[in-house]
Amino acid sequence: MKISYECGACFLRQAREAMDLASDDEELKLEITRDIFEFLSKNFYLNTNSNKTGSTIHNMIKQKTCCTDPYFEEKIKGNKIALKYLPLVQEILKKDNSLENHVKIAIIGNILDFGAFKLDDDIEKLIKESLSKKLAIKDIYEFENALKTHGKVLYLVDNTGEIVFDKLLLSKIKEYDLDITIAVKKEPILNDACREDALNVGLDEYGEIVDIGAGTVGYVDSEISQDFREIFNAHDFVISKGMGNYEGLTEINLSSKEVFFLLCAKCNTIARDIGVNTFDMLLFKYNK
Amino acid sequence: MKISYECGACFLRQAREAMDLASDDEELKLEITRDIFEFLSKNFYLNTNSNKTGSTIHNMIKQKTCCTDPYFEEKIKGNKIALKYLPLVQEILKKDNSLENHVKIAIIGNILDFGAFKLDDDIEKLIKESLSKKLAIKDIYEFENALKTHGKVLYLVDNTGEIVFDKLLLSKIKEYDLDITIAVKKEPILNDACREDALNVGLDEYGEIVDIGAGTVGYVDSEISQDFREIFNAHDFVISKGMGNYEGLTEINLSSKEVFFLLCAKCNTIARDIGVNTFDMLLFKYNK
Repeated sequence: MKISYECGACFLRQAREAMDLASDDEELKLEITRDIFEFLSKNFYLNTNSNKTGSTIHNMIKQKTCCTDPYFEEKIKGNKIALKYLPLVQEILKKDNSLENHVKIAIIGNILDFGAFKLDDDIEKLIKESLSKKLAIKDIYEFENALKTHGKVLYLVDNTGEIVFDKLLLSKIKEYDLDITIAVKKEPILNDACREDALNVGLDEYGEIVDIGAGTVGYVDSEISQDFREIFNAHDFVISKGMGNYEGLTEINLSSKEVFFLLCAKCNTIARDIGVNTFDMLLFKYNK
Repeated sequence: MKISYECGACFLRQAREAMDLASDDEELKLEITRDIFEFLSKNFYLNTNSNKTGSTIHNMIKQKTCCTDPYFEEKIKGNKIALKYLPLVQEILKKDNSLENHVKIAIIGNILDFGAFKLDDDIEKLIKESLSKKLAIKDIYEFENALKTHGKVLYLVDNTGEIVFDKLLLSKIKEYDLDITIAVKKEPILNDACREDALNVGLDEYGEIVDIGAGTVGYVDSEISQDFREIFNAHDFVISKGMGNYEGLTEINLSSKEVFFLLCAKCNTIARDIGVNTFDMLLFKYNK
């Protein structure tokens, strides 16, 4: 996906957050902010790739602050809080064990920014309120059909914390008797899940964990490793979580694949791109 | 006041808001955003003046979109909503008619962004909750003493909407028998009050309305008119509302004056500069 004018403010908001997690040196953060302005003054055009731009900004921050993983503690906290809510969610899924409810739970994981939460009540309320909402796009029939007809699936995860809720959908997918490969980031970027985060919540119970060979915001085709490219090419059925993976995968030719996006359209630019309202919950088959 | 690293994200957030009010042309807004990045890449240093920078950005937006007043409708709406709440606030002030309560009401006007509100209940709740809070700095004794000893005061207002609540403080100040001069912006910038906005809510009942001769974010000393400089120099007692005026006045020598700042420290940079917590409500005498 390409950027829109609205991404400018968002890049800076994200950069401030990452800098605050990476460093207390206010003068350095001012210098990095100026560097980001300079970079964006030369790379903020209609055809600018959003994930590549975001990745460059986060790498500038990591490099200049000498902090390789600004979100280290946020990620541990995110998984911990999500795991705390796992019994509640399992209880809900016991009552309605449908595939659609599992899909919704995985999307709700994408809505919740577990690292940002403190109060128990808010999360429980948010989960229950979101579950009562309808999916704005619901290609559930196509999704179930893909689960029934394919022998294997590649599942691209998004954030730490969120992966706890992905685990529940993975357990449901397993009922359809597919081989599952779960793709994580190789190096830390934002609060995206890496191998350690995935193992930490036991994702390996349901499939083989592979990394994409890069630490990019979402998926950036030019950055993935040869190993991952082979894995990617070997899969006709892909499940993609979150906005970053949507932004990246829609940049490449997916005509030979069945790709399902599960996400909440949390920003105007992506909502406009898909043609939905902001905060809509979506399960949709690409290129149908 | 000088900028901090945190101002970067805030300049972009404000710019996006102003652009959205000024234009629907997404390509143009992308181009303006890139121009802002270029400007900031050359003007984002430790000694950068925050108000001058903000003013330049908003003027770029006005010029490029050919919209001289992006906040025109927001300002009308802001005054209208604030006027709706005037009877409620007057009722509250009948029960506790103290100077401190009037000061608090004027600061609450600074907290509320009337243009952003829709639901009636939220505003009433916010007003009552804020009134129950203590002022984090409360130079009320010095303030009352200044009202008693000076024959005239210069009152620098901030936003439209907010000025409705200023009117109540002005009526209280009038009890101390001072000549009041009320300073507004000459040209529209953000939702700052201009002469028409001030007349619209009847501020002229309590004093002479003058404009600062410029349409800058807050007060920028190099931009004010000669007429206003004479008015400013002729006043030993100044009441300054809001963050923008604080940012501007603290850039000049105020040692010969008694200046009182009434504001809510809505951003980290200003809260740090003053040495208070974010969202603290403050009445303080400068240079005491």
